[in-house]
Amino acid sequence: MKVGLDVGGTKTDAVAVDAAGEIVGRVRLTTGWGTDAVTATVLAAVGALGTDAGVDVAAVRSVGIGIPGQIEPGSGRVVHAVNLGVDELDLVAATQPTLGVPVGVENDVKAAALGAFALHGGSGSMAYLNLGTGIAAGIVSEGSLWRGARGTAGEVGHISVDPNGPLCRCGQRGCIEALAGGGSIAERWGRPGPLPVRDVFDAAEHGDELARVLRGDLARGVAAAVRVLVLTADVDEVVLGGGVTALGDRLMADVRAELAASAEASPFMRSLRLDERVELLPTGSPAAALGAALIGAARGAEGALAHG
Amino acid sequence: MKVGLDVGGTKTDAVAVDAAGEIVGRVRLTTGWGTDAVTATVLAAVGALGTDAGVDVAAVRSVGIGIPGQIEPGSGRVVHAVNLGVDELDLVAATQPTLGVPVGVENDVKAAALGAFALHGGSGSMAYLNLGTGIAAGIVSEGSLWRGARGTAGEVGHISVDPNGPLCRCGQRGCIEALAGGGSIAERWGRPGPLPVRDVFDAAEHGDELARVLRGDLARGVAAAVRVLVLTADVDEVVLGGGVTALGDRLMADVRAELAASAEASPFMRSLRLDERVELLPTGSPAAALGAALIGAARGAEGALAHG
Repeated sequence: MKVGLDVGGTKTDAVAVDAAGEIVGRVRLTTGWGTDAVTATVLAAVGALGTDAGVDVAAVRSVGIGIPGQIEPGSGRVVHAVNLGVDELDLVAATQPTLGVPVGVENDVKAAALGAFALHGGSGSMAYLNLGTGIAAGIVSEGSLWRGARGTAGEVGHISVDPNGPLCRCGQRGCIEALAGGGSIAERWGRPGPLPVRDVFDAAEHGDELARVLRGDLARGVAAAVRVLVLTADVDEVVLGGGVTALGDRLMADVRAELAASAEASPFMRSLRLDERVELLPTGSPAAALGAALIGAARGAEGALAHG
Repeated sequence: MKVGLDVGGTKTDAVAVDAAGEIVGRVRLTTGWGTDAVTATVLAAVGALGTDAGVDVAAVRSVGIGIPGQIEPGSGRVVHAVNLGVDELDLVAATQPTLGVPVGVENDVKAAALGAFALHGGSGSMAYLNLGTGIAAGIVSEGSLWRGARGTAGEVGHISVDPNGPLCRCGQRGCIEALAGGGSIAERWGRPGPLPVRDVFDAAEHGDELARVLRGDLARGVAAAVRVLVLTADVDEVVLGGGVTALGDRLMADVRAELAASAEASPFMRSLRLDERVELLPTGSPAAALGAALIGAARGAEGALAHG
């Protein structure tokens, strides 16, 4: 049995996965704020799988944790998990002694990529494109994450696709994230509300000019990210997930229209059939927690090898 | 001993490589035009390694061929090698019976990527960005080519980075290839000459306005391709080669200035140190022929396995 956690900015999703790869238990907890509270949430989530989901926690052999921050390669050290109030935290050191099994830590987008790949049948190649406050992708081929040389694999959000586009918080102009990131859209919209991107879609349908521009930029940015991923890494599929995809079919219709426009203009782009290669991760999918479980299990296997 | 050929639009470069990976013989021939002449060039080049470079051709165990066209995956079939006058040619079927050893065929940019990686020490990851009439890249990690799902891995030339940019021959606007491809620059320049891109650089230095725009677009397109490769595949290094790199340091100075401008604007881009991660393939490098030799040898090893 392996456990996987997706530690999100508001909720932590935990799953227990059996030897056949099936999810046999799942719980959700509110994520605590700051270093100690995040550590406590991880420990509580594993315990809750036993108490609330009937999982035999004594049979757990590894724990994997996906978390929205940078992970120092080969370590359990998380840095700049700003949405969790964590500047720096060694999650392996903080949790493994209590959990008593090997713990693996990975960036949440990369974990979700691995989980989405497994849920999708686990063959070929896939990019998982996370549309949240920011935009980043994880690339998986034949079950392995493309980790890259220096930790920026899949950072397509900061590719500029319009020199006259909106200023990105990174300092460049026209980044994919400046066009399509939830944070950028909320800032450009400038009106308070729990779901600014939904407000933008609604206002665009009522003819609001700014909302129409923002909605167009969102589709333009997402379509650009899809093209970048297919033309660079040539993945079979691009799966969209993250908070902005709560818009569901309204978002997908816009993205498909944008991809159709470039296919219309270009026989080469048409030959890529991008519209058939993009799909939405279903709402509530356990992809990130499942991927974290796979990462934890791999860390466990490494440990078993290292220790004979 | 393994032989590798780089069949170019005007010249064919052939190398013989010993078991230690050293190039022990090299010849260059003029490439013939059309299906039969290309086949004859391949056979003549292998023979010339014996007669002109003193290679013991009886000791050759495999031949690899890099060629500017699409290669049907897993076959020796070349299609759309327009610069060679070849619409379709099965190079394995056409040459293997005469050569008497396993023959492997690969797209020339992918072969050059593998060769540049080997010449560079053969560890980590690298993208080879070919700046010729068109623009495409090959991505290598730990000695393996990233082949992708459907044959478009590394096709960064058709990523649009400016919705108001020049029209690309693919039909889109502002593609990297429309900004920086030698073919596009020659067409936009519109004046005859053997090396239009050099004429553009010279004229830009004399203040010609169109030439300054074209020269700026070239650097802008190359820098965009470098950013795409690092932000998507996160390769350690991007090596530039192909006909346009004959401009050498004049081109590199422009590209570095362009990368420096985005580093100036963006702390994130600055952290990538892109200027230190870009370099030129030396003029006359045998990278493509060497990479072809490695591909041919791999095909030979597969054959040995398949036939016991």
